[in-house]
Amino acid sequence: SSSTTPITATLFPGDGIGPEIAESVKKVFTTAGVPINWEEHYVSTEIDPRTQSFLTWESLESVRRNKVGLKGPMATPIGKGHRSLNLTLRKELNLYANVRPCYSLPGYKTRYDDVNLITIRENTEGEYSGLEHQVVRGVVESLKIITRQASLRVAEYAFHYAKTHGRERVSAIHKANIMQKTDGLFLKCCREVAEKYPEITYEEVVIDNCCMMLVKNPALFDVLVMPNLYGDIISDLCAGLVGGLGLTPSCNIGEDGVALAEAVHGSAPDIAGKNLANPTALLLSGVMMLRHLKMNEQAEQIHSAIINTIAEGKYRTADLGGSSTTTDFTKAICDHL
Amino acid sequence: SSSTTPITATLFPGDGIGPEIAESVKKVFTTAGVPINWEEHYVSTEIDPRTQSFLTWESLESVRRNKVGLKGPMATPIGKGHRSLNLTLRKELNLYANVRPCYSLPGYKTRYDDVNLITIRENTEGEYSGLEHQVVRGVVESLKIITRQASLRVAEYAFHYAKTHGRERVSAIHKANIMQKTDGLFLKCCREVAEKYPEITYEEVVIDNCCMMLVKNPALFDVLVMPNLYGDIISDLCAGLVGGLGLTPSCNIGEDGVALAEAVHGSAPDIAGKNLANPTALLLSGVMMLRHLKMNEQAEQIHSAIINTIAEGKYRTADLGGSSTTTDFTKAICDHL
Ligand SMILES: CC(C)[C@H](C(=O)O)[C@@H](O)C(=O)O
Ligand SMILES: CC(C)[C@H](C(=O)O)[C@@H](O)C(=O)O
Repeated sequence: SSSTTPITATLFPGDGIGPEIAESVKKVFTTAGVPINWEEHYVSTEIDPRTQSFLTWESLESVRRNKVGLKGPMATPIGKGHRSLNLTLRKELNLYANVRPCYSLPGYKTRYDDVNLITIRENTEGEYSGLEHQVVRGVVESLKIITRQASLRVAEYAFHYAKTHGRERVSAIHKANIMQKTDGLFLKCCREVAEKYPEITYEEVVIDNCCMMLVKNPALFDVLVMPNLYGDIISDLCAGLVGGLGLTPSCNIGEDGVALAEAVHGSAPDIAGKNLANPTALLLSGVMMLRHLKMNEQAEQIHSAIINTIAEGKYRTADLGGSSTTTDFTKAICDHL
Repeated sequence: SSSTTPITATLFPGDGIGPEIAESVKKVFTTAGVPINWEEHYVSTEIDPRTQSFLTWESLESVRRNKVGLKGPMATPIGKGHRSLNLTLRKELNLYANVRPCYSLPGYKTRYDDVNLITIRENTEGEYSGLEHQVVRGVVESLKIITRQASLRVAEYAFHYAKTHGRERVSAIHKANIMQKTDGLFLKCCREVAEKYPEITYEEVVIDNCCMMLVKNPALFDVLVMPNLYGDIISDLCAGLVGGLGLTPSCNIGEDGVALAEAVHGSAPDIAGKNLANPTALLLSGVMMLRHLKMNEQAEQIHSAIINTIAEGKYRTADLGGSSTTTDFTKAICDHL
């Protein structure tokens, strides 16, 4: 394999099963000879006064400096009124697009065998504005904010992604028949960008209809781009079609070329430390990170090893109906390299 | 069959394929000896100054007086800046709960054969407030409004429905981890009502997770209650699991005992007038209306005839893979009565 100068990447193992699945990634990457030095950062148990968060200033700086990272599940401490750590990262690092490829894994049977789509979610605004208040007693409101800047940015990302990944169609998902101003602005921006990509087919699909079409025939879709909450909903729905969040990768794209790949499943505290966790989502997120770094050879090698291990079916973790430990499953992947 | 005093019900055949499928309902109901006189109302081609809408004052009065009605698809005239006719009806008649039973039809195969759930959607507020504005150029906002009154009302309806229909569990669907105030208030109201129904299991499920669970294993759910937009999305997703909106009924519940059953699919102008439309959703909505009227005997009789006709598979409309006309399919149902 190639002997490139090593790259430094930030690694957030995260909480719960996070450290175990991060260990799996390190093992697989080392075995594949990936030239990466990891800078490991853990969520603090105390608030860092410089970030006003459980994320330390050093860990945010690490991602900003390295411009690339991989993140396991982070459990936000509850009952303390704190903003979710995931949301804090998105905000602080300006991670404006969340990309989730979703495809049927050969050999892992679900009700669907023809899924191959990409959801691209606006990741900074919309229903996640955090602006809420009580109007009068018993009447509360939340503000959904859509801006031209963020909509153009994510639309541009989606079309550029489609073009550079051999995809043919971008579907903008919306509810502009009801939210004419907000979703209307989102669509307007998508249309503007679509004009610049005449080779990519552009369509608009109302979210309720989109969900119905997805469960009836997901092969109808290619690249989907949408405001924040719709992306949250639809990306989980799509993950469900192919087996769940334990199998689907994601990557957050920020300005200045920052990319933070991320397993979006939970920290599964019930099985933490028991060597039972499935590292697939974090491994596949790691593969997305490698592709982002243009380490395509190693990316494909690792990707095939994961897919083949699952397809072979001899080593599978409990969530996939097997009885392998995390380390045995990881070893099987390494053996496939 | 019983010879009750006839009841008068409002019928909105609606647009596009509406009149054809309404004809089918009338035929089946007459054949089954249902003691109903229909008061038919059509959407006007002009705005009625008394309602400021294409719905006439007479047609709204008809529903208010009869307290029961059946509605086909209504196509809102576009490009005129008018509020959707469906939304106008919900608002004007205060139709606060939208009930959509969703179950696998024996004999009509989809990827799922174990769906049997009820979505109950808050139908008057939330993301459908209509309150939107531009903050500054390029920045727009929509207001999601949640009130204690509407939340309690729909929660009460859901639990009462569960109790009176032999259902065991109510799941409140939300995104209160992000919209703590609005969805938080919705959940608080659901919890208050849940206390009064100790025999019904109550749970709360985050909407993204709910969608993933629904596509993986819909049998996990029983009755789902949720704010307006989530209901819009999830009810369509669920319809997709069993074949689509052409097969799923719905009923809107208003204050003062008003019930307006409704086929929620579109008006399908492309096949209108061609005797090709599938009347199943409107027929099953009619069955919901009969149950509401406590005409249980006829309701079950008609329901069985529809199910059996579809299961038999000899007469099916094009959308279900057959080549029957609307009238032949309708005749087959009548023959099953
Ligand atoms: C944990 C939660 C705040 C988060 C979100 O809503 O974005 C999660 O569902 C996700 O998709 O990353
Ligand atoms: C047509 C549209 C306004 C409507 C809605 O969003 O409620 C429809 O999707 C429905 O579910 O009845």
